[in-house]
Amino acid sequence: MKPIVGIIMGSDSDLPVMAEAAAMLEDFQIPYELTIVSAHRTPRRLYEYAETAKRRGLKIIIAGAGGAAHLPGMVASLSTVPVIGVPIKTAALGGVDSLYAIVQMPPGIPVATVAINGAKNAGILAAQILGSFDEAIEQRIAAYKEDLKKLVEDKGKSLEE
Amino acid sequence: MKPIVGIIMGSDSDLPVMAEAAAMLEDFQIPYELTIVSAHRTPRRLYEYAETAKRRGLKIIIAGAGGAAHLPGMVASLSTVPVIGVPIKTAALGGVDSLYAIVQMPPGIPVATVAINGAKNAGILAAQILGSFDEAIEQRIAAYKEDLKKLVEDKGKSLEE
Amino acid sequence: MKPIVGIIMGSDSDLPVMAEAAAMLEDFQIPYELTIVSAHRTPRRLYEYAETAKRRGLKIIIAGAGGAAHLPGMVASLSTVPVIGVPIKTAALGGVDSLYAIVQMPPGIPVATVAINGAKNAGILAAQILGSFDEAIEQRIAAYKEDLKKLVEDKGKSLEE
Amino acid sequence: MKPIVGIIMGSDSDLPVMAEAAAMLEDFQIPYELTIVSAHRTPRRLYEYAETAKRRGLKIIIAGAGGAAHLPGMVASLSTVPVIGVPIKTAALGGVDSLYAIVQMPPGIPVATVAINGAKNAGILAAQILGSFDEAIEQRIAAYKEDLKKLVEDKGKSLEE
Amino acid sequence: MKPIVGIIMGSDSDLPVMAEAAAMLEDFQIPYELTIVSAHRTPRRLYEYAETAKRRGLKIIIAGAGGAAHLPGMVASLSTVPVIGVPIKTAALGGVDSLYAIVQMPPGIPVATVAINGAKNAGILAAQILGSFDEAIEQRIAAYKEDLKKLVEDKGKSLEE
Amino acid sequence: MKPIVGIIMGSDSDLPVMAEAAAMLEDFQIPYELTIVSAHRTPRRLYEYAETAKRRGLKIIIAGAGGAAHLPGMVASLSTVPVIGVPIKTAALGGVDSLYAIVQMPPGIPVATVAINGAKNAGILAAQILGSFDEAIEQRIAAYKEDLKKLVEDKGKSLEE
Amino acid sequence: MKPIVGIIMGSDSDLPVMAEAAAMLEDFQIPYELTIVSAHRTPRRLYEYAETAKRRGLKIIIAGAGGAAHLPGMVASLSTVPVIGVPIKTAALGGVDSLYAIVQMPPGIPVATVAINGAKNAGILAAQILGSFDEAIEQRIAAYKEDLKKLVEDKGKSLEE
Amino acid sequence: MKPIVGIIMGSDSDLPVMAEAAAMLEDFQIPYELTIVSAHRTPRRLYEYAETAKRRGLKIIIAGAGGAAHLPGMVASLSTVPVIGVPIKTAALGGVDSLYAIVQMPPGIPVATVAINGAKNAGILAAQILGSFDEAIEQRIAAYKEDLKKLVEDKGKSLEE
Repeated sequence: MKPIVGIIMGSDSDLPVMAEAAAMLEDFQIPYELTIVSAHRTPRRLYEYAETAKRRGLKIIIAGAGGAAHLPGMVASLSTVPVIGVPIKTAALGGVDSLYAIVQMPPGIPVATVAINGAKNAGILAAQILGSFDEAIEQRIAAYKEDLKKLVEDKGKSLEE
Repeated sequence: MKPIVGIIMGSDSDLPVMAEAAAMLEDFQIPYELTIVSAHRTPRRLYEYAETAKRRGLKIIIAGAGGAAHLPGMVASLSTVPVIGVPIKTAALGGVDSLYAIVQMPPGIPVATVAINGAKNAGILAAQILGSFDEAIEQRIAAYKEDLKKLVEDKGKSLEE
Repeated sequence: MKPIVGIIMGSDSDLPVMAEAAAMLEDFQIPYELTIVSAHRTPRRLYEYAETAKRRGLKIIIAGAGGAAHLPGMVASLSTVPVIGVPIKTAALGGVDSLYAIVQMPPGIPVATVAINGAKNAGILAAQILGSFDEAIEQRIAAYKEDLKKLVEDKGKSLEE
Repeated sequence: MKPIVGIIMGSDSDLPVMAEAAAMLEDFQIPYELTIVSAHRTPRRLYEYAETAKRRGLKIIIAGAGGAAHLPGMVASLSTVPVIGVPIKTAALGGVDSLYAIVQMPPGIPVATVAINGAKNAGILAAQILGSFDEAIEQRIAAYKEDLKKLVEDKGKSLEE
Repeated sequence: MKPIVGIIMGSDSDLPVMAEAAAMLEDFQIPYELTIVSAHRTPRRLYEYAETAKRRGLKIIIAGAGGAAHLPGMVASLSTVPVIGVPIKTAALGGVDSLYAIVQMPPGIPVATVAINGAKNAGILAAQILGSFDEAIEQRIAAYKEDLKKLVEDKGKSLEE
Repeated sequence: MKPIVGIIMGSDSDLPVMAEAAAMLEDFQIPYELTIVSAHRTPRRLYEYAETAKRRGLKIIIAGAGGAAHLPGMVASLSTVPVIGVPIKTAALGGVDSLYAIVQMPPGIPVATVAINGAKNAGILAAQILGSFDEAIEQRIAAYKEDLKKLVEDKGKSLEE
Repeated sequence: MKPIVGIIMGSDSDLPVMAEAAAMLEDFQIPYELTIVSAHRTPRRLYEYAETAKRRGLKIIIAGAGGAAHLPGMVASLSTVPVIGVPIKTAALGGVDSLYAIVQMPPGIPVATVAINGAKNAGILAAQILGSFDEAIEQRIAAYKEDLKKLVEDKGKSLEE
Repeated sequence: MKPIVGIIMGSDSDLPVMAEAAAMLEDFQIPYELTIVSAHRTPRRLYEYAETAKRRGLKIIIAGAGGAAHLPGMVASLSTVPVIGVPIKTAALGGVDSLYAIVQMPPGIPVATVAINGAKNAGILAAQILGSFDEAIEQRIAAYKEDLKKLVEDKGKSLEE
């Protein structure tokens, strides 16, 4: 199936985190592609990726990056496809640098930012967006939330006993 | 026309900021509703708002709140509709409290967070999401980005002269 | 004995921290209940927990949560029972996100916030509150503080020798 | 009537903020006393205030201080009466210094901390604590929360029109 | 004379700050060009600007931007010309967001970052770099530093009297 | 010999850090005493310690504490003897809480604050203060600084080779 | 009378703050000198100032500086005279930059740091240090603290009435 | 060959980080010298190093330091040679103290600051500066950036397969 979500990251060191976004999309049966695009090391690749995103059929792009994280914002500037940004935790500043560099976008070019290392939530958010226009996906999300609830309730009950 | 985007805020003091989201949606000809729902002062109203959002036809909810900002996250927990969170600037901490309270959601329940006081971008992001499924809206966003570009280029040129 | 303090937490990963609150209440011979209620994964359970707290006889609720920590504030919004909030330490930001999300409550709905991971103090604070209306508990707290004092004095003396 | 809540602050420059705690207690018809006690300029007065608090009938102490804010913690160390701390906003650091100096108490001696400049909430929290043991006060708080809710709903409705 | 330093900024609202870089270059008699290039609103213009910088004769580029400030880093990624980044002060976070987004560049692509709103120093730094290869410019910098010294000494003396 | 410097700390867990102050005083042959005084657990002991400091012959007090660190400031408020404060590193916030709680003292009551975990420097600072009035100690400090210099120069030379 | 305290600052813009140190020394009848020495603009003047401090009779140096505040630390490195550092508030970061640049000195070279803009306390701290070796000064400080106490008590009483 | 870049650091504990700058210069075939100069422990050595830098032929100085990091700024104040500052990560504050102490230089004396622990980028930046005046070096940088690009593209391709 043709991918409708693109997952990109600035470095393969981000893969352990970003793989959680992919895992969620698989759970929700949403076709995706995943690759490395570095805003700083492959700026022309970034340009090409972003400019072709729409006509290649992507509905949402998930972009993870750390430190002076420019990838999500630059993709957002080069495309009308909505971009979900994942700030990657950093050794020195815990990821607050990544967070500020992604979330504090200027008027005109938003990035939908999730928590530091929150790639799992990026996958769920992408699914929710698709689910607003696709009943089957929405049902799977509702079921997922129901499972989360049950899990908490079961743990709660075993604690109460 | 039936609203497809809901804009809510925790207090009417947030209105001057949140009105920018509404203005963008009007520019993009997207029907929306706007009201006040306080997570802390009207928790039952929040429950009802979030629980009925989907069947009332909302595709996206934009929620602004400041300080210990719980509104966006609680709406997200109560609905499968994607939620865009706007951290409102605060007097003491500049809005970093609002930002953390909105963006740092736990696994399972994402909020698509924009910049502090970034309500304008929340409106644009909502439009981009809708535009991924509606060619006419996507065209308006492309035109809007083209206008932004021209504006910068014109200012650049007048500076260069 | 019927519990008069409720201890809740957003996730069972918070249990090692929150158990310290329970341990203090046991030391002070205060009956309590302990369970998991997630603001984000079980919002309706939260609703029910908070709404029934008073009539079930709870005098104080201790709620621990991390990141975009909404549990203490939402319980406070849904009940008149005083809520003690415990910000749980987080991997990326050390718990400053949890702290801001709990302590910076808007006018009208306070949460009595203790230190990051300060569940032990949450238990003591609950005991102090009860002790203001129960001489026996107050005596136990006075004795506990006397023990703390002696411990410090003994250590001080052995250092001085 | 004999005061059951004591409101103290480190400096009369804190009075405009701390007066909001007093105003809430008046609304809830709770007798209180209010004075200045500086941990740093009047340490013996602080000792005396804290040591006599219980036998003078105080059930709760509300203490506001800014910067290296030691007043709430020192009162807590000298008494078994529960202490609510109000971090006062500071010119240089916005009050994050006051917040840390109040909330980060060591194990054994808790301070129930509210938001920066959150004296109003300190008053409400004191009322909630008293309300856990006094039905009449609890009713007034319930009514107050009902009023807050109505206010938000009315504003919401006028916005929706 | 052909410009050897390029000054760019993300928005004309940055001009009052960035003009200080231009003023210093004028003082040091260094030919420069100045224009607006927005990483987010004119990404293709940014690509073109950076890609042609070297062959147009620029030896140094000074780039100022605020918030999620991507301009300096993206120019650095697209050119081998050294880039001096100026973090612009922001309303909500004081410019710490701009600073992190500019200075925390990943290995491989440096940006020479100066203080928040430090455009004057960006101009001086550019002159120092040129001065390392141009005796006349170096002399002017030495004279400038001598003037700074005299100014301080004179003020010191008038204070001492 | 009668101690002229007092070293105190809030908890014996601070001893590994605070022992560095003692070690420096020993190197400089300055008689000191060392004990545990907790502002929060032994407030009366603190009171007594501070009030008797001067007449017991202490010229300087070094006080280390972590978190809501009140010990240095409270000793300073209770005595005219100058107090050097050592902010102890904390698990959650790295010691920025300790630093703010010690350094941000209100007008009237200063604490001479050193770096986080900077107990060694507290010892050296005490020696420098004494050295301003005692030539022999000043000579030892001058020699110590000469040793530091030589160490750096030797390491520098071995690197250069 | 020959000055025994030196007050220096990096810029005459720091004078309104640093004058408070001078005012306190005058109150305590301590002879002082005051001038401008910039670590960055007059490094040789700084070297000379620091190297001659001891033989010119200075017992303590008070140094104020803002931003990347190097003046206090550099004076401390060049002299055995104890240095009190005053971090000056900054426009962008509120003075947290000044504070870190002054207080976080490496092992070997301490600076006695006071609060942001805490020049008044720097003057008092200098007096306390001198007072440890001069009974007359110590008496003046004791009297000053007594006045502070009376002021607070009077204000407290007028509030209580 | 005579060194044209000087690499200095405040302590040999900084060597593992700073060696990355040296490694990059070697890759780019740029002659450099490397030694230890401590602003605080060897201020006169610093003075001498900086004052002779230009006439010894240095075109750029790279200076790394941590905490209250004064080395880069002091070298910049004593020389017209451009200085690249490397903030070293610190145990307590993650290096935000080093960053502020290096980047927030006052008007007149810039330091070209790179990321926390960003010594590799300091080496590359030095090469880029030299490359602006030396075609051979510029070619090596272009080749290096091409290699970075290829590496990312190859990793991207292997992920896509």
